[in-house]
Amino acid sequence: MSHDARFGLGRTITLAGPLPLDSGAVLAPVDIAYETYGALDDDGGNAILICHALTMDQHVASRHPRTGKPGWWLQVVGPGKPIDTNRYFVVCANVLGSCMGSSGPASLAPDGAPHAMRFPVITIRDMVRVQAMLLDHLGIATLRTVIGGSMGGMQALSWAATYPSRVRSAIVIASTARHTAQNIAFHEVGRQAIMADPRWLGGEYYASGDVPSAGLAVARMAAHITYLSEAGLTEKFGRRLQARPDSPHGAKSFGFDADFQVESYLRHQGISFVDRFDANSYLYITRAMDYFDLAEEHGGKLAQAFRGSATRFCIVSFDTDWLYPTAESRSIVRALNAGGAAASFVELSSPFGHDAFLLDSPELNRVIDGFLKAIP
Amino acid sequence: MSHDARFGLGRTITLAGPLPLDSGAVLAPVDIAYETYGALDDDGGNAILICHALTMDQHVASRHPRTGKPGWWLQVVGPGKPIDTNRYFVVCANVLGSCMGSSGPASLAPDGAPHAMRFPVITIRDMVRVQAMLLDHLGIATLRTVIGGSMGGMQALSWAATYPSRVRSAIVIASTARHTAQNIAFHEVGRQAIMADPRWLGGEYYASGDVPSAGLAVARMAAHITYLSEAGLTEKFGRRLQARPDSPHGAKSFGFDADFQVESYLRHQGISFVDRFDANSYLYITRAMDYFDLAEEHGGKLAQAFRGSATRFCIVSFDTDWLYPTAESRSIVRALNAGGAAASFVELSSPFGHDAFLLDSPELNRVIDGFLKAIP
Repeated sequence: MSHDARFGLGRTITLAGPLPLDSGAVLAPVDIAYETYGALDDDGGNAILICHALTMDQHVASRHPRTGKPGWWLQVVGPGKPIDTNRYFVVCANVLGSCMGSSGPASLAPDGAPHAMRFPVITIRDMVRVQAMLLDHLGIATLRTVIGGSMGGMQALSWAATYPSRVRSAIVIASTARHTAQNIAFHEVGRQAIMADPRWLGGEYYASGDVPSAGLAVARMAAHITYLSEAGLTEKFGRRLQARPDSPHGAKSFGFDADFQVESYLRHQGISFVDRFDANSYLYITRAMDYFDLAEEHGGKLAQAFRGSATRFCIVSFDTDWLYPTAESRSIVRALNAGGAAASFVELSSPFGHDAFLLDSPELNRVIDGFLKAIP
Repeated sequence: MSHDARFGLGRTITLAGPLPLDSGAVLAPVDIAYETYGALDDDGGNAILICHALTMDQHVASRHPRTGKPGWWLQVVGPGKPIDTNRYFVVCANVLGSCMGSSGPASLAPDGAPHAMRFPVITIRDMVRVQAMLLDHLGIATLRTVIGGSMGGMQALSWAATYPSRVRSAIVIASTARHTAQNIAFHEVGRQAIMADPRWLGGEYYASGDVPSAGLAVARMAAHITYLSEAGLTEKFGRRLQARPDSPHGAKSFGFDADFQVESYLRHQGISFVDRFDANSYLYITRAMDYFDLAEEHGGKLAQAFRGSATRFCIVSFDTDWLYPTAESRSIVRALNAGGAAASFVELSSPFGHDAFLLDSPELNRVIDGFLKAIP
């Protein structure tokens, strides 16, 4: 079936909708950009949905069209990898609200102009609803697993809570069941940086020939610090100075250039992000993450979200992740246990903080591989 | 002697200089705004210098002229308080580079225009050198103690290393002997936010009738998160929503207003900061903190900074401070021990993170009081 026109890289489907959103608004039609890898079994039982993080996209194992970089999870997804595309049919879709082909603030509204801030505020559950509609389109009734790290883990949790009968297993990596005050605070700094940029123009910058790049870069820089551990930053950069033409080991400039390597690195992270991401999408997706509180959707009791669930869960945290620390994963596990759901949990050791889930990790690979093979 | 014209609140002295700076530049003249409390003993032996943090000032126990708020360390400084102004002669000076009366980018250069970015980049040691010149002016040869929290602690350390014979004791609270990569990274986000604000105008905004308020507010918001603990934020705000006229317990707006109380709080922190602080001063002082590495000034060995020191040290950390965590204080204590200096160390428990040193803390009061009374 792999030459089915619905399957492959670089696909976009327009779903007629209507898609009712948590806000009460309705979206129709809805574009969803996605990729598939491998072949769907005749019984449809080998499908895996990968949910991506805040600034990632559907190019999980294919070259990114704007940056030219290889897929963001190549070490996990591919032939012979833990998510083995020789065995599994893998789907990854750009989330609703993003900017890589799915409907979002940068996409065109029926009147032919970008939605901009007319785009409705969405939630993690809204993203999941769109993915469910995509799976319907692809003929996938039930997922062998839904997997994701960070915001991808939120979607995996939301999938299991919203469509329990469609999810045989869920792998939730470096994630949380709700955004804390500190999580919200960091996102709010980023949003304020974007909205303070005069080129943001209330979100109507698409026709201006310019974008709020300075604000978006600052937002990315602030967020990026939360993705790394203090120890990892110290190991990678410490207080080392930037080499300069007249000073191969660097020297303090007694000015405001990037003297320290970590400054230069952060500035690069900010600037390069602007080339590949839409500022309004950043506003909408961070808002969706801040709104995420799975317990709140279930009467304030997280266990209630998983009551009697037949889904098998695998929860993974990293010991140096201070964005979504292990304690958040433990509280998910406690809720799964209280709800009577099957849950395994592992805390992996890594010096790299939250970003560890995107990096080469033999331990993470082993956990995913072992868990997937044990699914009946 | 307390009616000496040099003593009292609201004093400013212009020192002729020249003041040689670590950068190699020379500053002359140098204004220094300061306050004194209490009376200087005839033998000058009861003087205490309080060093303030990044955005604080000389108004340690007097009303702030711009905000109208009471002094920032009233619970520690005053009659009958641990730094007892009935016993001690207390000096607190606005640091070099700041904006409350001491020379800084906002103060006027000899040509009558603000220095702006012509002001030389300064270091923590430069701040201390100016304070030493002020003490000369006040007739204080030796300090009973030099005390400070956060950047104030850096100055206290620098005092002990630079003028060991003038410092009988030093109290270093919630501080560090060097800025880490993560510390630098957060400051760099703030600086980029300021410099990205088009109203910054390369620092030449003083005559424009406007200031880079949006950038400075974002800088303050990002920094403010680092002053609070995750647990403290959760306790204070959690995910509670802002009350609205039509919704006393708050409701999600499905928009980009401040839905969460923590968003509203952060926005307020950013906006109110702009009214009392100069953006260029923020650039210069954060740079001085990032440059701070006391070991580097002593051949890479922190112990060398205190070798044979007769100064008695009291190092205090807070268990939830993730900006300058207890590990940083411990490494100072190890260096003091290795250098043969007398050091006591205490880690205090507080839910409030780095900001704990500014809050009412009976334990901190007891530590300061006990240590000060034990100084011969």
